Amino acid sequence: MRKVGVIGLGLIGGSFAISMREQYEGVELIGLDVSESHRNQALDLGWIDAAYDVKELNMLKTCDMVFLAVPVTVICELIGKVLDIVDDHTLVVDAGSTKQEICRVVKDHPKRAQFLACHPIAGTEFSGPKAAIKELFAQKIQILCEFDKTRADLAHNALAVFEGMQMEIRYMDPVMHDKHLAYVSHLSHISSFMLGKTVMQLEPDEKNIFDMAGSGFESTVRLAKSSPEMWAPIFVQNKENVIDSLERYIDNLQQFKENLIEENEAFIRAEMKDINSIKSILNRIPTNNKSQ
Amino acid sequence: MRKVGVIGLGLIGGSFAISMREQYEGVELIGLDVSESHRNQALDLGWIDAAYDVKELNMLKTCDMVFLAVPVTVICELIGKVLDIVDDHTLVVDAGSTKQEICRVVKDHPKRAQFLACHPIAGTEFSGPKAAIKELFAQKIQILCEFDKTRADLAHNALAVFEGMQMEIRYMDPVMHDKHLAYVSHLSHISSFMLGKTVMQLEPDEKNIFDMAGSGFESTVRLAKSSPEMWAPIFVQNKENVIDSLERYIDNLQQFKENLIEENEAFIRAEMKDINSIKSILNRIPTNNKSQ
Repeated sequence: MRKVGVIGLGLIGGSFAISMREQYEGVELIGLDVSESHRNQALDLGWIDAAYDVKELNMLKTCDMVFLAVPVTVICELIGKVLDIVDDHTLVVDAGSTKQEICRVVKDHPKRAQFLACHPIAGTEFSGPKAAIKELFAQKIQILCEFDKTRADLAHNALAVFEGMQMEIRYMDPVMHDKHLAYVSHLSHISSFMLGKTVMQLEPDEKNIFDMAGSGFESTVRLAKSSPEMWAPIFVQNKENVIDSLERYIDNLQQFKENLIEENEAFIRAEMKDINSIKSILNRIPTNNKSQ
Repeated sequence: MRKVGVIGLGLIGGSFAISMREQYEGVELIGLDVSESHRNQALDLGWIDAAYDVKELNMLKTCDMVFLAVPVTVICELIGKVLDIVDDHTLVVDAGSTKQEICRVVKDHPKRAQFLACHPIAGTEFSGPKAAIKELFAQKIQILCEFDKTRADLAHNALAVFEGMQMEIRYMDPVMHDKHLAYVSHLSHISSFMLGKTVMQLEPDEKNIFDMAGSGFESTVRLAKSSPEMWAPIFVQNKENVIDSLERYIDNLQQFKENLIEENEAFIRAEMKDINSIKSILNRIPTNNKSQ
């Protein structure tokens, strides 16, 4: 990798750029972002060598690799244009949290084989260039979708990059990817955002939230700090699966409420004990996979 | 403080014992617990000098201070009996997460003035004697209810103990306490438990939960590891406030779902942006108040 382009200079794009700089000595890194302030911050932080507006996609032509780390709707808009522009040797990779629509959009593109659909299971609740960190991807899961549709030499390059970052590779169908992510990740974000909303409605005096946040609220609401620009398009793009999981969640809350009304304490206790088994699942997660 | 009794040798009782040992050189610490295994663990860990079954409340007679750290229903059962037994100079303190029912139960006891209703806003998702840690209470909020009903000399002693632990004191009415805690803490626990339940229902293959937990689930579900023995009685005892907050939460989730069905992306994004303001509230929390 001698020249790499990153579209979207936030937490994910920035952390990717930093990792590439570490891994490939002398690599030239160029960054594209709609925001001038993000471009300037990224230049100041030193993890890119040159910055351009997203309109200037032609700057990516000679890159060995292009990494798209923008909201999923923007990935869908840009992916075809990026493929149109780049040379035959360029590998194009995205980092979107949905995969079905992105794979659909790119399906019939003449350069489909130069694209690899990815989803790094990595992040924090922070966003923007300053949130980027060197170790974000190390020991994290990298999900690759439709791997067999990527040209063998480029797929090989992609694996070398991700293995260099010490990522763990998983292969998945885009339909299954979107289902699993709705259940495990997207629902968590919605439950957290709605918890934040509810508590702010019920507690107009912020002092009380502040004083009592140590009693469980702080960790449960952490994801409600996440970027609406990234997350609103994810929910809409994965609407069907998200709604399925939301309905199940609401049903469970409703049922819990009814048991509470009836004061079925023994039932509630037994149910909570069952749910405690989540411990044994979570305990298998390595500590450095717990960033978000 | 020369002799201190702790009822309930778990995370809270144990952390209290460790702090007392640190603070009062030569203090004699006795521990009561229904579980023989907990008693033995506490003795092995060395933070109590002697252990008894909870039936042997008479062992507490000559204590300068008795600390009740058992489920709230058990506090209600024991509090009168403890007060019956203890000497005139004994301060009795509880650490229950509800305050209204506990204050009601003790209201007409002839030794009401020897009791102080407390709630330390401190904890982790772990439980049992081995979960006890020295620094649990440092820089945490200690809520005191009906402080003026406690005899002045004993109230003074209690403040000295909590200030020695570097706790921050707040005074609160029991009715308001239970309301605030339902909104900020109890609802967070239910949302987390129900999230754990939903994800386990939707993802029968634990491998998928494990692989994707880094994408938000792990932090949001953390409270679902909490002890059902402690929490089921809290929900039931604070039933009305908990149901109020649950209803509001379910309404908000329902509304979110309807907006998603309509694909009101702009609305969803604007709402999430509003909720992001939770950041500025949470940023005021000192790091060491973030344990749970």
